[in-house]
Amino acid sequence: MPKNQLFQYSVVSALMDGVAETGISISNLLSHGDHGLGTFRHMVGEMIILDGTVYDMKPDGSVVALDDDACANQTAPFAMTTDYQPTTIARKLIPTKDALTKDLSDFLPNAKNHYVAFRAEGTFKSVTVRTVGGQQSPGESLAELGKRQASREFNDIEGTIIGFRSPAFMQGISVAGDHLHFISADKQAGGHVLTLKGDGYVELSAAPITGVNLQLPTEDDAYNQAKLARDDEGIAAVEG
Amino acid sequence: MPKNQLFQYSVVSALMDGVAETGISISNLLSHGDHGLGTFRHMVGEMIILDGTVYDMKPDGSVVALDDDACANQTAPFAMTTDYQPTTIARKLIPTKDALTKDLSDFLPNAKNHYVAFRAEGTFKSVTVRTVGGQQSPGESLAELGKRQASREFNDIEGTIIGFRSPAFMQGISVAGDHLHFISADKQAGGHVLTLKGDGYVELSAAPITGVNLQLPTEDDAYNQAKLARDDEGIAAVEG
Repeated sequence: MPKNQLFQYSVVSALMDGVAETGISISNLLSHGDHGLGTFRHMVGEMIILDGTVYDMKPDGSVVALDDDACANQTAPFAMTTDYQPTTIARKLIPTKDALTKDLSDFLPNAKNHYVAFRAEGTFKSVTVRTVGGQQSPGESLAELGKRQASREFNDIEGTIIGFRSPAFMQGISVAGDHLHFISADKQAGGHVLTLKGDGYVELSAAPITGVNLQLPTEDDAYNQAKLARDDEGIAAVEG
Repeated sequence: MPKNQLFQYSVVSALMDGVAETGISISNLLSHGDHGLGTFRHMVGEMIILDGTVYDMKPDGSVVALDDDACANQTAPFAMTTDYQPTTIARKLIPTKDALTKDLSDFLPNAKNHYVAFRAEGTFKSVTVRTVGGQQSPGESLAELGKRQASREFNDIEGTIIGFRSPAFMQGISVAGDHLHFISADKQAGGHVLTLKGDGYVELSAAPITGVNLQLPTEDDAYNQAKLARDDEGIAAVEG
């Protein structure tokens, strides 16, 4: 498997249109990378792939590491993964999420129109996350789910951020800009990162991605019928 | 190489922004498919890949089949190719380009949000093509080139259309909708299809594409600095 090649299953606009009934098996997904993020069937919970292990960060706040049986049986309606090999590693102060964005741009000045995979590891002053609560009816859109989202704030917490930066022109296919999921070092807490504060050094690494392998859903009538219109505001509201 | 997997080099928005100084070698491109289309360095001429041979349909109306040396030395700033294995073949009347669009939709009702590769072969009452004339200055946009485009009409001509349908949500990355290049059976004429008229049966084949391998330009400062904003009208004007 080539390093730092993005594998993405489905498109974010499909989640916006509520296409989450089926998807790729987690086992299949893991064959394409060891670093990733996504969600699970019916958009119940946030996925993080850390060093080849998939964690399900559930709406109730609990976190489960998926074993082989779970990987064979569970599906993801959307996920991104790569076989991660950082090309830049540095110890950085990351006072805010915006500072992280700037650091990544400084790391990789030639990747303005590329994807970037990144990882930040250390102790954060605070991390505010949400874990998506799942569709209450078939086809409910991610925007609707976003209105019900509960957030949790963790303070002085050690853990890892797994992220992808997607180029602006891929909005709707991926999430344009930086998309971060977090898991605590004790694997007891995590979710989709809303805000971030740091007050000490963390290890920040990144790699540019110039090859994208996009797998579109098949045998999925909801996907086939979906409008998949680009919804910049909607995506920013739930994935920003 | 898996069949009916799309390989695409760069994005259409990069052509719109005039990024055409460098690109993928034709030899590399051919390793990803035997059916395709694109353009050449500085957007001089239209490319068609027919049964694994690359033809350069030049602005002066001449057509050249690229030999191994030319494939090693020439580059494409944008191209799409697939190892084509049609899943549907039928003899069809194709009175117009719109009729072709409808036939493809009827062939593959479950591919509304997929790519489609297609091919039409036979004698056409008329085919009007353009062959893009090349940048007159570095970074000139495809929209500017389009304003200078000359078209040629061929009547009662036997030949082959190679095409891709791209889903609406991929506009700017690919050309949303149907994108057709034509080459005559005697390999003496061809180009990007503007209009099409038929009055007899032609063989129409198609295959859905659900896997996309997108390769973004690297070590290309023009690409790195490009805005790559989606320009629906501009793309329709030059690629419609």
